[in-house]
Amino acid sequence: MVDWAPLLRPELAELSAYKTADAPGARVRLDANEAPASTSTAVRDAVLRAVERTALERYPDGRMRELRDRIAQRTGARPDELLVGTGSDEVIAILLTALARPRERAPRAAVLAPTPTFVMYRINARARGMHPIEVPLDVRWDLDVGAIKRALEMTRPNVVFIASPNNPTSNRVSDDRLAAVIEAARDSLVVVDEAYADFAGGSVRAWRERYPWMAVMRTLSKVGLAALRIGWLEGDEGLVRELDKVRQPYNVSATSQAAAAAVLAEAWDDVSRQVAAVVRERDRLASALRALPGVDVPESHANFLWVGTPAPAARVYEGLLARGVLVKTFHASGGRLADRLRVTVGSRDDNDTFLDAFDRVLKETAG
Amino acid sequence: MVDWAPLLRPELAELSAYKTADAPGARVRLDANEAPASTSTAVRDAVLRAVERTALERYPDGRMRELRDRIAQRTGARPDELLVGTGSDEVIAILLTALARPRERAPRAAVLAPTPTFVMYRINARARGMHPIEVPLDVRWDLDVGAIKRALEMTRPNVVFIASPNNPTSNRVSDDRLAAVIEAARDSLVVVDEAYADFAGGSVRAWRERYPWMAVMRTLSKVGLAALRIGWLEGDEGLVRELDKVRQPYNVSATSQAAAAAVLAEAWDDVSRQVAAVVRERDRLASALRALPGVDVPESHANFLWVGTPAPAARVYEGLLARGVLVKTFHASGGRLADRLRVTVGSRDDNDTFLDAFDRVLKETAG
Repeated sequence: MVDWAPLLRPELAELSAYKTADAPGARVRLDANEAPASTSTAVRDAVLRAVERTALERYPDGRMRELRDRIAQRTGARPDELLVGTGSDEVIAILLTALARPRERAPRAAVLAPTPTFVMYRINARARGMHPIEVPLDVRWDLDVGAIKRALEMTRPNVVFIASPNNPTSNRVSDDRLAAVIEAARDSLVVVDEAYADFAGGSVRAWRERYPWMAVMRTLSKVGLAALRIGWLEGDEGLVRELDKVRQPYNVSATSQAAAAAVLAEAWDDVSRQVAAVVRERDRLASALRALPGVDVPESHANFLWVGTPAPAARVYEGLLARGVLVKTFHASGGRLADRLRVTVGSRDDNDTFLDAFDRVLKETAG
Repeated sequence: MVDWAPLLRPELAELSAYKTADAPGARVRLDANEAPASTSTAVRDAVLRAVERTALERYPDGRMRELRDRIAQRTGARPDELLVGTGSDEVIAILLTALARPRERAPRAAVLAPTPTFVMYRINARARGMHPIEVPLDVRWDLDVGAIKRALEMTRPNVVFIASPNNPTSNRVSDDRLAAVIEAARDSLVVVDEAYADFAGGSVRAWRERYPWMAVMRTLSKVGLAALRIGWLEGDEGLVRELDKVRQPYNVSATSQAAAAAVLAEAWDDVSRQVAAVVRERDRLASALRALPGVDVPESHANFLWVGTPAPAARVYEGLLARGVLVKTFHASGGRLADRLRVTVGSRDDNDTFLDAFDRVLKETAG
């Protein structure tokens, strides 16, 4: 037994490895905000043909020219404003490795995020010895501008992450509040994480012109390509140039680059159609849930619902799992998360299975 | 224009983004230690079938059970001793993010490596604010045990990287010296980077039993699968558990996991055959080069040669490039690297093209 503690960053003692769901019995998996299985042969064909064309023995294009060109065409960004990573996770890690200079009178750089939100901001900050500053969202899961402004003044964070639509709360934050926070955070990099923007019918990326210290993050993981692990940041060219020093030269596999570029070029209409189908199912599922007594479902702009349960979420979660339906619970966090579940919008069949199981579980837990 | 400097880690000012080769005119690319194009349909079929089976909409298995099982079967490691990354680059980044606790009387953690060697140890250390300690290899490009011992005592590095076979010098370091260094570095993690071990006919992984503070790194990038970006560390289970806290939960794409697992399971004989062919070509190429006046080629245990040129390497490099042959030059580093080129062993045809061009360039530069 080697004692690694004297070599390890002390913050690791308080971290545990991210647990990915392990419920092999679950037939219906609505826990990870994945897309329903694709019905598009165009998407699968584009991926397979791209892999077939890839020279397996060659390193990927370290500059990702083709993929960045394709993303640029779809988004309106310039290729030099794009940093692509193995999922948004890696983009966050690159950001926090690079933007780590301690500010005046602070021993460690800080990272601010309104919570509850995507956990990788905090985990990646801690894993790099940075100080995570968490400011609670308000009762409507919107930004608390006053509290954020005070936290900005006190902690001068290097990076502010604002997920919108937010995970797990499903809502877009309101435009005026977001603008107020970005204005107030002009000494930081403000990253608006739009991982779910495809389901929101809108993006704030055009705001970058007004707020050059703002960047947006996007991903292909929610729209049917989670297996490829493609996420990106769109931001100031000078920032991307600095982040490139921290990015591993071949950080995205050639097969993922080629496959993603091919889908963007050849099969994006199919992706969009499937996104539209998820949005329709989301609205159907939300209406059905709202008809149940004691169930609260705020408006969702994402591919999942933030479901308030009349019984403790932990019990509902277990009841669903016993019926083969896996959703995401946050009850370990306690407080106002103790009666919330995050439910991914799945295929029509999966959603019906969930609805049926949910209805029964609620009746049981009430009885 | 935003001034990002106040937010950026100060070390970035001295770093530049890793430059990947950009010589579109080169017909023969022997610069990146890639394998020659595969002649195996078994390898390509295994990859394509694996991608075809992958559910594109699902996140990868965050624990990489199948891939780690396959690697375990091929190497003799236990799955829990394996940390897999998007190439060795990411494994190095994970190691240096985690093993970052400053030692007694040191403001920053240190990382030691004998040089010249793979540059990503130093770049990843700098990008994380760690202190890179470089100890020159001796005149035969072997470990200078005395100098390393002194450096260990003075700097107490968290991690010691020893590449063997070493890039760019092509040799395995000698066993007795390696053992002496590992013994002396028992307060560090010693990582023996065996990226090229497939061409060396041997590995020191069995030494882990004697030296539990030692780990080995391996990769599939040199044996024909660079496009997939699969590298791994085999080390103490307790270490891997800590590194898992820093690893992104889905750090390797599902397609790369499935493809690599399939090749390991179904087509490894073909990979081995192609490795053997590269070794034969390496020995032929080395003999042919040694017959040229003033050319020094030390024994290679890798898939490339470390070629000492009678004329300045920069001129030979340019002469080769003018003939459409791209190799790797280190002349910018000066000193004893100024008359060295690193030449990947390619296909028989590519090697002949290189030999012919090299011969002509030497005659020109001599004349």
